[in-house]
Amino acid sequence: MTLILALDFGGTKLAAATVNLGSREWLRYERRLSPVNADANTDLEIMRSLVHSLLQDTKPAAIGVSFGGPVDATTGCVRLSHHVAGWENLPLKQLLEQEFGVQAYVDNDANIAALGEHRFGAGQGYDSLFYITISTGVGGGWILNNQPWRGSVGMAGEIGHIVVDPNGPVCLCGKRGCVERLASGPYMAQNARELLTRERKIGTILRDLVGDNLDLITGQLVSQAAASGDDLAQEVLQKSAWALGVGIGNVANLVNPQLFILGGSVTKAGNRWWEVLSQVARETALPEVDLKIVPAALGDDAPLWGAVALTQVRR
Amino acid sequence: MTLILALDFGGTKLAAATVNLGSREWLRYERRLSPVNADANTDLEIMRSLVHSLLQDTKPAAIGVSFGGPVDATTGCVRLSHHVAGWENLPLKQLLEQEFGVQAYVDNDANIAALGEHRFGAGQGYDSLFYITISTGVGGGWILNNQPWRGSVGMAGEIGHIVVDPNGPVCLCGKRGCVERLASGPYMAQNARELLTRERKIGTILRDLVGDNLDLITGQLVSQAAASGDDLAQEVLQKSAWALGVGIGNVANLVNPQLFILGGSVTKAGNRWWEVLSQVARETALPEVDLKIVPAALGDDAPLWGAVALTQVRR
Repeated sequence: MTLILALDFGGTKLAAATVNLGSREWLRYERRLSPVNADANTDLEIMRSLVHSLLQDTKPAAIGVSFGGPVDATTGCVRLSHHVAGWENLPLKQLLEQEFGVQAYVDNDANIAALGEHRFGAGQGYDSLFYITISTGVGGGWILNNQPWRGSVGMAGEIGHIVVDPNGPVCLCGKRGCVERLASGPYMAQNARELLTRERKIGTILRDLVGDNLDLITGQLVSQAAASGDDLAQEVLQKSAWALGVGIGNVANLVNPQLFILGGSVTKAGNRWWEVLSQVARETALPEVDLKIVPAALGDDAPLWGAVALTQVRR
Repeated sequence: MTLILALDFGGTKLAAATVNLGSREWLRYERRLSPVNADANTDLEIMRSLVHSLLQDTKPAAIGVSFGGPVDATTGCVRLSHHVAGWENLPLKQLLEQEFGVQAYVDNDANIAALGEHRFGAGQGYDSLFYITISTGVGGGWILNNQPWRGSVGMAGEIGHIVVDPNGPVCLCGKRGCVERLASGPYMAQNARELLTRERKIGTILRDLVGDNLDLITGQLVSQAAASGDDLAQEVLQKSAWALGVGIGNVANLVNPQLFILGGSVTKAGNRWWEVLSQVARETALPEVDLKIVPAALGDDAPLWGAVALTQVRR
């Protein structure tokens, strides 16, 4: 039996699990919310206690780690976390290897999710795929020739920051009309808020959902209002699906992977969102380009399963 | 000595050469223009006579072929030529193997150029690169992990048909604002023609260059007029460079290759074109993404050198 330890530093939650290689059942599993005002040290301390509780007197053969932020996968060094302070240039791989005396592998959550879906989820049996998460942000991870593709400086997969509308609204990154600026949950909420502020007589369903307190609008409520027939919410959701569809069509023309896998909270926005993005992607891709888009198959444990897969990547 | 035979079916020209593997000097070299109204059979007949004249009583160890149009590189079957009739589904690899009794390898000119630049040109020493040709059309070819990447159905690299301006003019492919629609030579000429027709008092330098016969405008003349200070030509050229810059920046965010290599006639449009595209690409790529853009190093014989490289690809 080869025991694998999988860790997930998720920004707002921390999870750890052990599995015997080849099994699809966790041997042991622990999960905690990251405390408000956590920093890297408190998160590491919590994770340490989870791991010791899981392992007791066993020793894993390898450790796989999913981290919710940019990572140098070669050195296993975290670049930073956008959610939690104190992670800047933290050598997570080295730290874990010293503490547990076994090989550790660290990668960011989008690459990890691509790996997990490829090995255990919707991407099984495909040689090449692009995994896209559409949630608080929009990111992606590649599998090409059955291996992760991370790019020259580990920055591949940033579909959230390709420009699809040069006259669109300004994104956090400074450019106009990025996929993320139009398709992510928080930006959908912002777009709805702005439209409701400008025009008082539209979006009554969405407005009612938040008792006219526009600050309470979320991406999820936009989807909910759209499903109930709210015109303004439907317009915002349509724009999200359009942006993602153009992005996917462009990726298909550029790299032509066998499969696109979509995960993240926004993918629960309903059938109409899926229909629009599929249609726009098909129109954007050249007719000769094959295009297959499916939802992610792994649920909340996706980062942990991806972390297991990471320990098995050929190097 | 390992003798390699390299063939280039270029649409308007045909070339063949032999080289001893490892040498950078052609042993023998022959070249002909493809006759007007040529079809696949006449081109094949001319190529056959070139080859027999080159080889005489020697026999090559392998044949590499660059074809100016879509090819299934796995089967070596030509899909079609956009310039010459009769190439539909022609099994070129099989045909050459039967005739010469050695392994033959066939790929399209953009993939071949990427290979040639990687092995013999501006891409030597890089693990990953994207080659872009900007000429009559706009196409591209990938090297990832030191190997060609062609995509699921061989359609990877189509940067010409990613959308950069959804409100832009309609492309031959049916979409609006494709890179090719804004950046290619013939489309630059068309854009200039339309602007000159609409407004009589601008573009006087360009107008003078063609003696007011707008049908004579070419991409090259647009570049020439822009260099001489023509306002309208500069605007058209700027839009070409902008579209390509957005395309390159998007590719950098998505795949993050070490190097971009630009070839084709439009790359001779002058310093201003290069400056604008480099700046726009830099603004479009995320700050963390490294970006290196260089001109192609191989000249007119690029397809032949790429064909030599193709015979040496690990399979």
